[in-house]
Amino acid sequence: MNIRTIEWQKNQIKLIDQTRLPSELKYLYIKDLQKLWQAIKLLKVRGAPALGAAAALGAYLGIRGSKAKDFAHFSQELNKVIEYIASSRPTARNLFWGLERICSVAVKNQHQSVSRIKSLLFKEAQNIIEEDRLACRRIGAYGAKLIKNKDVILTICNAGILATIDYGTALGVIYRARQEGKKNKVYACETRPLLQGARLTSWELKQKGIDVTLICDSMAAALMRQGKVDKVIAGADRIALNGDTANKIGTYSLAVLARYHRIPFYIAAPSSTFDLNIKSGKDIPIEERASREISHLFFKSPIAPKGIKFFNPAFDVTPHDLITAIISDKGPISPPYRKNIIKILGK
Amino acid sequence: MNIRTIEWQKNQIKLIDQTRLPSELKYLYIKDLQKLWQAIKLLKVRGAPALGAAAALGAYLGIRGSKAKDFAHFSQELNKVIEYIASSRPTARNLFWGLERICSVAVKNQHQSVSRIKSLLFKEAQNIIEEDRLACRRIGAYGAKLIKNKDVILTICNAGILATIDYGTALGVIYRARQEGKKNKVYACETRPLLQGARLTSWELKQKGIDVTLICDSMAAALMRQGKVDKVIAGADRIALNGDTANKIGTYSLAVLARYHRIPFYIAAPSSTFDLNIKSGKDIPIEERASREISHLFFKSPIAPKGIKFFNPAFDVTPHDLITAIISDKGPISPPYRKNIIKILGK
Repeated sequence: MNIRTIEWQKNQIKLIDQTRLPSELKYLYIKDLQKLWQAIKLLKVRGAPALGAAAALGAYLGIRGSKAKDFAHFSQELNKVIEYIASSRPTARNLFWGLERICSVAVKNQHQSVSRIKSLLFKEAQNIIEEDRLACRRIGAYGAKLIKNKDVILTICNAGILATIDYGTALGVIYRARQEGKKNKVYACETRPLLQGARLTSWELKQKGIDVTLICDSMAAALMRQGKVDKVIAGADRIALNGDTANKIGTYSLAVLARYHRIPFYIAAPSSTFDLNIKSGKDIPIEERASREISHLFFKSPIAPKGIKFFNPAFDVTPHDLITAIISDKGPISPPYRKNIIKILGK
Repeated sequence: MNIRTIEWQKNQIKLIDQTRLPSELKYLYIKDLQKLWQAIKLLKVRGAPALGAAAALGAYLGIRGSKAKDFAHFSQELNKVIEYIASSRPTARNLFWGLERICSVAVKNQHQSVSRIKSLLFKEAQNIIEEDRLACRRIGAYGAKLIKNKDVILTICNAGILATIDYGTALGVIYRARQEGKKNKVYACETRPLLQGARLTSWELKQKGIDVTLICDSMAAALMRQGKVDKVIAGADRIALNGDTANKIGTYSLAVLARYHRIPFYIAAPSSTFDLNIKSGKDIPIEERASREISHLFFKSPIAPKGIKFFNPAFDVTPHDLITAIISDKGPISPPYRKNIIKILGK
């Protein structure tokens, strides 16, 4: 079964509505920018690399109808579109990276006709999609070298097909290891509050025939103590120059627990997730989401009393010293991170 | 507002149906043993100290109608009742302790008439209830000495009024600190899968006017890193002779995280939770519960695909070396635990 998280089809964005999984695999067809913004905000499409593609396709979607006759006007309109998309979610680097790529193509080609620029922007969005497909496969290949046959791997949230175009970062490593004949078992943390581990990771691992066991986030420590986890692999939403990594809330917890139990802790992410303008994790903006994600189960049944407070950060930052290696599409990056990130990813 | 989790009223057991909270405060009136067994199994009544009372009252409930004419027959029937109650849940020490107390009174008074023994058993169950009320208040007094004004306290599951008769162990410490004029803020971990933190702890802290913020279990590490947690206090289901402590799944995770962030980690529990016949935590039986607790939200809506595996241990064991002190009703117990547990709790 080949699954594509997001693509351009019949003049519109086609994406899997991830809020419907695992009950049904339903596609959304998006023709206007506001619907895309909503889809990002409500996590119908999520995962840093997929958001890079969504942002770039979204920029094209938002500007393709422009009636601007010259670049000055076109550029003004494009900037508005880009700012609007950028306002959807603050943490994932790829969203901004996708928009910057689009913006840069426009600026570079400002002497071309508006219609020519439009078609170049579309091409750039398609490039981003193709690059992600390749990057994930490279991450898979580099990462699989770190995985032994029968290693049991713990992961959190979803850094798989559904977080990328069609392969995954952390889960891409597992898919590649399997392709190489290795048999690995996966523990998926359910990932409260929105249960991406339960709904998405379990679902896609099952589709791919990988042995997966779902646990609550709070059970990871006990599993580690029982010697049942050989490696932890997580994705990333943004990686600072020093290797500090923002990822789904709970990732930092796993990193501390892995250190305590002497289990290797890996981050798998493409170059596009690195933000070399940010020196350390403390400068990464962390999205705080609606308390209703915690107080109600899927925004419906209340599970907490009224009148109390909630704290709902969507991400946390894992400091670089807890990360064994970052598996990038340009190769695995080991400490010292600042030096090696610059060396491997260039500037 | 005075809340009683469990009591004897009008010839039956009256208990709060905790599966209905926080939506409604509803009482169950239980006249037959099977219903009590179900109430324990389904966590309508839960929390180690409350289970001690439930078990003792349940034993009386199960035997009061006995038509036995002599002790031999009465004893046979009582043992059956006790075994039946003991089969409900395996981990909480107090459940067995309550049954042993009942059994012991019967044996000690075997030369009395059956009707006299019955009334002594009833009295013993009432003693257990009164002792718990006092024990919790003593724990509160000892524990409050460890709490400073404005300390922010993190807790997991529910070790409050609803886990005891009417005061709590870990939360009893907070109630006592407040009585002494201290203002403390509490972070409650929601406690997946059954959300006792969200449903019960938040509810009772709110009833008592304590400042409470609910978080998902996976957020505790990030809070600690941000310096927002001064102390962790949890309850216990069973404490071994060496201080190893079984408590709600996720407690061990918090203990490791607290150690990493140099935050004191306390266990609060009455003497009845200690099992001096068990040398270390590895001998504590850990209940594994139905996978449906994880795969479905409150057994209704599925949140995971079919055909995957689940792992659902209800408890984990925190090794004694991660525990700063155990706050018992006989006084706080510090390391070395084996020596000090014997010294303080005697044999």
